[in-house]
Amino acid sequence: MKPDAAADDDFEQRVRASFERQAFMATLGATLTGVQPGAVEIRLPFRPEITQQHGFVHAAAVAAIGDSACGYAAFSLMPIDAAVLTIEYKINLMAPAQGDALIARGRVVRAGYTISVCQAEIVAVSGGAETAVALLVSTVMTVRDRPGLRA
Amino acid sequence: MKPDAAADDDFEQRVRASFERQAFMATLGATLTGVQPGAVEIRLPFRPEITQQHGFVHAAAVAAIGDSACGYAAFSLMPIDAAVLTIEYKINLMAPAQGDALIARGRVVRAGYTISVCQAEIVAVSGGAETAVALLVSTVMTVRDRPGLRA
Amino acid sequence: MKPDAAADDDFEQRVRASFERQAFMATLGATLTGVQPGAVEIRLPFRPEITQQHGFVHAAAVAAIGDSACGYAAFSLMPIDAAVLTIEYKINLMAPAQGDALIARGRVVRAGYTISVCQAEIVAVSGGAETAVALLVSTVMTVRDRPGLRA
Amino acid sequence: MKPDAAADDDFEQRVRASFERQAFMATLGATLTGVQPGAVEIRLPFRPEITQQHGFVHAAAVAAIGDSACGYAAFSLMPIDAAVLTIEYKINLMAPAQGDALIARGRVVRAGYTISVCQAEIVAVSGGAETAVALLVSTVMTVRDRPGLRA
Repeated sequence: MKPDAAADDDFEQRVRASFERQAFMATLGATLTGVQPGAVEIRLPFRPEITQQHGFVHAAAVAAIGDSACGYAAFSLMPIDAAVLTIEYKINLMAPAQGDALIARGRVVRAGYTISVCQAEIVAVSGGAETAVALLVSTVMTVRDRPGLRA
Repeated sequence: MKPDAAADDDFEQRVRASFERQAFMATLGATLTGVQPGAVEIRLPFRPEITQQHGFVHAAAVAAIGDSACGYAAFSLMPIDAAVLTIEYKINLMAPAQGDALIARGRVVRAGYTISVCQAEIVAVSGGAETAVALLVSTVMTVRDRPGLRA
Repeated sequence: MKPDAAADDDFEQRVRASFERQAFMATLGATLTGVQPGAVEIRLPFRPEITQQHGFVHAAAVAAIGDSACGYAAFSLMPIDAAVLTIEYKINLMAPAQGDALIARGRVVRAGYTISVCQAEIVAVSGGAETAVALLVSTVMTVRDRPGLRA
Repeated sequence: MKPDAAADDDFEQRVRASFERQAFMATLGATLTGVQPGAVEIRLPFRPEITQQHGFVHAAAVAAIGDSACGYAAFSLMPIDAAVLTIEYKINLMAPAQGDALIARGRVVRAGYTISVCQAEIVAVSGGAETAVALLVSTVMTVRDRPGLRA
């Protein structure tokens, strides 16, 4: 289940430019820490503003970076004029999201013409050690010919 | 598939107190607009800070209120000393999340001793009209005897 | 979240003809018991051949009729020359699948040009009473212009 | 995300005995081809009886071996007197299920006291070559102290 080669040489620039336009990533405090063809990494430092009632990072913030890592992993393989839309995702929360930061590592499991399947593992980093926090699987769509949707 | 009666008379107060402790809901700007036994409604006004790269509300913010509406719907039926944990959820994004505000309506589909299944519909409200934006199904756990987890 | 009107008058005949070609439905012993625009019902009588290790109907047989009820609900609304493909589904198993028969009731939650979202409830019938057994949500695709795929 | 060691030395015998009691696996024609602690492989030869309307193996048969491979992977790590129940699963169908046979490889992603998360890849084998057909993620429960549920 290896991703295809990136559709163009500017894939990293396209991914970074789109990520910059996601205001919600800035609101969360997430940053893009790795972009390869079919694989993207996003980091989210722990902050009280993103916690739930038990003091852990809210599942939705965990999902946010997992979903984005998946979407951009797929986007890195798409044609230069396409946009990416998440159709659906499913996330399993396996351990409390606590520590210094979360890292989501998304990769393309299968890149199709219209539909791609991606997967992200989200780990918590605490003092250098990693703990698996969540597993996310998403279905994304390559959208062509819809000028209203910028990449 | 009717939810059980709430386990105690204070269910609304318990739900509201727990919601207040979710810093992430305040960060998003979400408010609790309805609490009934087995059914909870959360409202999220549109704000640029929670958008994705196309200017719509980010899927993760949509999921955040859907997941919370589900979790609190289940929590409203739980024993007074229990905590609620989301084990997993799945969300289908059906239309762009745009408009004046989003409303998530969560309800319990099946309340079990340990495992409950919940469902939320998230709609966008624009000038009084509602459009279905997303469908979320979650599996939540009733956690007993873990004093570290406040409700 | 109301389904569209059926795309043609022959929707019931198209659904029934396609169902007949599903050898697996016959292997299971499932029958099509209701076809309306955007809503399909399938019945599966209890048989020892489809059980799992505890004597209940196997989750995969429960999913089989739920997935098919969803797919045909979507198919009933599709253009006459289109085929339906399930992209993904998620099922929550809520109670042991035991009794006289199972009934899956699938309906379209949102019918899109390419992607539709469907939902099925699967109940067990025992002496006239129904028990909710499972909840299934599926994403299906309308496939056009692929002659290899008959409806 | 490494599975725990098996809870007892007889894990393979326990898995095989439980698999034998699944009448549905025999109805499908599936066999258990590998049992390791936290990892199980199931093989399903192509047969016309398990196809859908396009002549491919029905998604539900694909899911059946994926779900079982996951469940038994988790079961292999459970205490000797526990039973395994699938709470929910999600499957992405990535390519037509055609060829000589399907192989499902399930493994435990996280083994918890009550809840375990598992994942299976299902491939189609055709003339020795493998094609990824589906990805399944499941949530299973370790059931203790319920004598009615044999392993």
